[in-house]
Amino acid sequence: MSRFARTPEPPYYAVIFTAQRTDGDHGYGAMAEKMMEMALEQPGCLGAESTRDADGLGITVSYWTDEASIAAWKAVAEHLAAQRLGRERWYSHYEMRIARIERAYSGPQGRG
Amino acid sequence: MSRFARTPEPPYYAVIFTAQRTDGDHGYGAMAEKMMEMALEQPGCLGAESTRDADGLGITVSYWTDEASIAAWKAVAEHLAAQRLGRERWYSHYEMRIARIERAYSGPQGRG
Repeated sequence: MSRFARTPEPPYYAVIFTAQRTDGDHGYGAMAEKMMEMALEQPGCLGAESTRDADGLGITVSYWTDEASIAAWKAVAEHLAAQRLGRERWYSHYEMRIARIERAYSGPQGRG
Repeated sequence: MSRFARTPEPPYYAVIFTAQRTDGDHGYGAMAEKMMEMALEQPGCLGAESTRDADGLGITVSYWTDEASIAAWKAVAEHLAAQRLGRERWYSHYEMRIARIERAYSGPQGRG
């Protein structure tokens, strides 16, 4: 499965989540997998891209048709529980930014 | 040094660059470091966050005051040379998205 999101022509929306993990798993791996699966099934979700290095710094960008879809996903009960565990256990620091994608392009031309 | 960008209150702009590295270095490491240093010194650059996993999937998000600053950085000669090498050697696939940050917040409250 491609790790790139197949997004449509802009405009659309993105949630950029940059987060430093604490040490140890504390249930993170299983929950993160489940939350990604759930997010991708939400109405308005266009896809997501996610990576994390060996030092525990991760960036996940999820893409959405509109801001209402982002707000609806934020309020899903299981996701609220995961957000709470994120604050309490999993992340020493995070930055969350909501953005409107204005322009986009892919590359390299003729490769990949 | 913190790996989080200290960005101001929105609105501001972001370039989200998701890219799969090819195998081998081919001069990538040194050039990537130099380009990050140069980008952070450009007028209008607010900071950047970057991470890459062991499979070579990286996400770099750079933050800018406005779209004109992004366009100016794209046209810097050394950066143009790096972009060419990126297309020819370093990336099997990439997605570049330019976004306007609408809202942002940090966490966890009282930690980090």
